[in-house]
Amino acid sequence: MNININDIYAAQATISPYAVKTPLLESPLLNKRLGGRLLIKAEPLQITGSFKLRGAINRIANLNQDEKAKGIIAYSSGNHAQAVAYAAGLFGTSAVIVMPKDAPKVKIEKTKAYGGEVVLYDRYTEDRTKVCARISEKRGLILIPPFDDAYVIAGQGTLGLEVAEQAEGMGLQLDAFLVCCSGGGLTAGCAIALNSKSPSTAVYAVEPIGFDDTNRSLIAGKIVENVAGANSICDAILVNRPGELTFPINKKLLKGGLVVSDDEALNAIAVAHDEFKLTVEPGGAVALAAVLSGKIDIKGKIIAVVCTGGNVDQDIFRKAI
Amino acid sequence: MNININDIYAAQATISPYAVKTPLLESPLLNKRLGGRLLIKAEPLQITGSFKLRGAINRIANLNQDEKAKGIIAYSSGNHAQAVAYAAGLFGTSAVIVMPKDAPKVKIEKTKAYGGEVVLYDRYTEDRTKVCARISEKRGLILIPPFDDAYVIAGQGTLGLEVAEQAEGMGLQLDAFLVCCSGGGLTAGCAIALNSKSPSTAVYAVEPIGFDDTNRSLIAGKIVENVAGANSICDAILVNRPGELTFPINKKLLKGGLVVSDDEALNAIAVAHDEFKLTVEPGGAVALAAVLSGKIDIKGKIIAVVCTGGNVDQDIFRKAI
Repeated sequence: MNININDIYAAQATISPYAVKTPLLESPLLNKRLGGRLLIKAEPLQITGSFKLRGAINRIANLNQDEKAKGIIAYSSGNHAQAVAYAAGLFGTSAVIVMPKDAPKVKIEKTKAYGGEVVLYDRYTEDRTKVCARISEKRGLILIPPFDDAYVIAGQGTLGLEVAEQAEGMGLQLDAFLVCCSGGGLTAGCAIALNSKSPSTAVYAVEPIGFDDTNRSLIAGKIVENVAGANSICDAILVNRPGELTFPINKKLLKGGLVVSDDEALNAIAVAHDEFKLTVEPGGAVALAAVLSGKIDIKGKIIAVVCTGGNVDQDIFRKAI
Repeated sequence: MNININDIYAAQATISPYAVKTPLLESPLLNKRLGGRLLIKAEPLQITGSFKLRGAINRIANLNQDEKAKGIIAYSSGNHAQAVAYAAGLFGTSAVIVMPKDAPKVKIEKTKAYGGEVVLYDRYTEDRTKVCARISEKRGLILIPPFDDAYVIAGQGTLGLEVAEQAEGMGLQLDAFLVCCSGGGLTAGCAIALNSKSPSTAVYAVEPIGFDDTNRSLIAGKIVENVAGANSICDAILVNRPGELTFPINKKLLKGGLVVSDDEALNAIAVAHDEFKLTVEPGGAVALAAVLSGKIDIKGKIIAVVCTGGNVDQDIFRKAI
């Protein structure tokens, strides 16, 4: 499976009638405090509140008529769920979304409001991939994977392509680009885009402490799983191991991984609110957190980070601000 | 004083290297609830957190070298203050900002951080225009008015021009455009832009109850002041009467005025946070509030509103969400 910049250009053409070209923002006051230039890709402004719409549209738009007629299925605790439910409606198909029973109520409700048929499962006693397989076998549905899929990776890569184009339009040469990382689909897509459009930009994956499987896998040179028992508020980006498709790309193209704490993510939410008037969820704030907490040196440099989503639990948001 | 679309095009060329072209957002879920299409111009994402940067840059960029050498002065309780302080630095001049002693501390601090020299006055015992006049006379400073100035009006009008261009780019014909209105500079600039670029779009000024001087002046056909003693949380848009320059433009070009309550503004802040991941201040939320509270019928229609700023007091924001 070889995904390249042309796949991302094709994805850009596919998604552009439906997705927001989110702005690349900066704050003069924050730049002054940091001693460098920090650019924020404001993806909470994306329709459905996260970048997940990009991959969902690119995957669903490229289904054939037979597949669309069958209907689709996806598993997700929130952002991919809303994106797939909404994108299904755009392309005249229907979506079953398998969600954990204890997912935030607002995410379940919004997934339904976007037209998704929500099937709840118990994540302590059931395996979501098995729940998915059982339903899709019975009803003949097409699975839309959250990250390990070439169309999904290319779709998420449009975010990196936009960042490269926007930075170029501002006359800026990015020293580094930091991406919030879970299964690694967004990271891989963005790494391909930056590597092609701006090869001197170092791309980093950013993860929460305890869920830094991509970081440790990069160090080990092979896929390593998380140690069981860790906890984090960064609900959107807690997977157990990098993807089979995404990791080889990330291993080849990333400069490295960075790891932040929940408190650092909370502080980043507060800064995004105060300096950028943007609502960011914890998992969407880890790349910003990495810069603010000094995990990478920004002095005299130009660094872009993506804030990936804004579907935040209200209690956590209140605590952060 | 005749301001036309060419002045706004010129302003657009002047501000574009410095100001964000903020996105025009929509929410499929909110549209479904409303039964129409609502587009939000997300101006809290503007540098300094409000549209005021547009007018400030256009006014200061058009000062001659002598004037820049003298330095500038402005009075404001917040958004114009930060915008002028920041814009002064962009064009190599310095700014004295006259602010009320009881302005939110964060706004005073940010104005200083942007490089402004802040002079505080007591708004219960002193007249800010007199404080300004005294200082500017003594130090030979150039006043940057908040709204009654052709360059300021043309600068704010770039927001309306962008909305018209963005709606056209989306293939949409706007039925109405609603603008948060204080002295009327943004409203007048936007009305000129829409009248030229999209003449079938009805433009409305939206104000808080008790500070609906533009609405009542439009009805009376002449400038009418507010009745003393009213109160509102919409601190950014509380002026006593329409501007001498702005009102004749608004009288000629507006379809009318709409008036909302503080509670309706608070609800609009919550909706902007939940559906658009955007932080909006009360005065910046009144246009959105007018649609959400049914002050204008959106069923089957396409309406754009501007959310003008996001420099919100934290207590009010917490109360709203």
